[in-house]
Amino acid sequence: MLIVGERINSTRKEILKAIRERDSSFIRDEAIKQREAGADYIDCNAAAVGISEEPEALRWVVEVVQDATGAPCAIDSPNPEAIRRALEVHKGQAMVNSITGERSRFEPIIPLIIEYRAKVIALCIDESGMPSGLEDRVEKGRKVANMLLDSGVPPFDIYLDPLVLPISTERGNGISFLKALARLKELYPDLNTIGGISNVSFGLPARRSLNQAFAVLAIGMGIDALIVDPTDKKLISLIFATDAILGRDEFCMNYISAVRKGRVE
Amino acid sequence: MLIVGERINSTRKEILKAIRERDSSFIRDEAIKQREAGADYIDCNAAAVGISEEPEALRWVVEVVQDATGAPCAIDSPNPEAIRRALEVHKGQAMVNSITGERSRFEPIIPLIIEYRAKVIALCIDESGMPSGLEDRVEKGRKVANMLLDSGVPPFDIYLDPLVLPISTERGNGISFLKALARLKELYPDLNTIGGISNVSFGLPARRSLNQAFAVLAIGMGIDALIVDPTDKKLISLIFATDAILGRDEFCMNYISAVRKGRVE
Repeated sequence: MLIVGERINSTRKEILKAIRERDSSFIRDEAIKQREAGADYIDCNAAAVGISEEPEALRWVVEVVQDATGAPCAIDSPNPEAIRRALEVHKGQAMVNSITGERSRFEPIIPLIIEYRAKVIALCIDESGMPSGLEDRVEKGRKVANMLLDSGVPPFDIYLDPLVLPISTERGNGISFLKALARLKELYPDLNTIGGISNVSFGLPARRSLNQAFAVLAIGMGIDALIVDPTDKKLISLIFATDAILGRDEFCMNYISAVRKGRVE
Repeated sequence: MLIVGERINSTRKEILKAIRERDSSFIRDEAIKQREAGADYIDCNAAAVGISEEPEALRWVVEVVQDATGAPCAIDSPNPEAIRRALEVHKGQAMVNSITGERSRFEPIIPLIIEYRAKVIALCIDESGMPSGLEDRVEKGRKVANMLLDSGVPPFDIYLDPLVLPISTERGNGISFLKALARLKELYPDLNTIGGISNVSFGLPARRSLNQAFAVLAIGMGIDALIVDPTDKKLISLIFATDAILGRDEFCMNYISAVRKGRVE
């Protein structure tokens, strides 16, 4: 399971403050904490500083995170100029978070994906907006998947995201995501799937248990990567446990080893 | 979700001791703790006292548990004489845990199920023994389901258990259970399904995370009842969370209410 650590996001007050003040030790600590907890990629989002300041801010965040951890980043922005600035300084293969099937978003970003050979998260969104229900997610997923493949992005670099929306606004949002995931995997077995798990619990209390349950169900449906807070130790424990339950962990050796290392509780 | 609390089981040393010493306050506490944590049924198992003493011991346990909680019991024994003694004193509709498709076990127990109109847990086991793999579970499940239906047990009183076996001995045991569950639900939509979740983690460290992940996956497959330790608060939290994620909890009101009552963390 590929883990993208979601904590360095400027929608969080303390992250926005740290970015504005160029407080590199705060950002370093957040990066190191996530890397040590098992993040394969560190998401870097600076969008809340405002569109004109974002490119320079995002470049700075990516440099701080990579200096601290050496980990690759998920460059989290809808802004092509910010993505370009971040990709210019990024070492190794970056992941771009994200592209959609909207022409106005796809066209300026796709040349950057190709030029920098980046992985890319593809949201099931098109000109008609956010998806609603299962069929719409599948249809929008097909559209953006085909646009990426037609543009020459290798299948293994594409991470389809059926779009996690809160169950507090529409109770079918969780199950639509899970079923769309299974359908998109059938349609595109060579592509990867991903989801921003914590969006499911937006607006609800006791969010961690909801996120944990949703992550387990998504793994059960075959998801390849999760955007999560890796410092939630119970969540990481359940990810290891789910792989073992599903028979993907021979003799449960990964699970036992994670317990010994104190990563599973 | 129907919860059967599994803690009063004589394979646990302290329970065996309490039963042998007729320590009713210990058994009462275990019963009350489980009832308060959300158990709908309290499992009562006294088998480890030995076959000749079991009938009287099991009757005693059932009386203590019902005096303490008023809850119905899952009468957990392979011994027809012990089951009869317990059913004689049980108030309300009991659940018998369990019957199998083995003639030598089925025939002495089925008249008790009929006479006392008990619910019954039906294990996917037959003359050829424990099931191995998916198809064998489905086949053995069909056999015992048909035997019960042919005997006149109402479908809604039957709880089919595809048999949870440890993933430590065979890594396919978890996934076979989950897939058999889905298949048996398709074949017998009017019957219920159940599983003894904690068996999956036998022989492994950090068992709770494995049990929690397995419970979430089983709920995702549509299981109707769980045999678990309800005093595991994270497990109960994840059960509520999973129902909400799957869209079975309108406006997440059950979840929010459980959070307010301190049942979800």
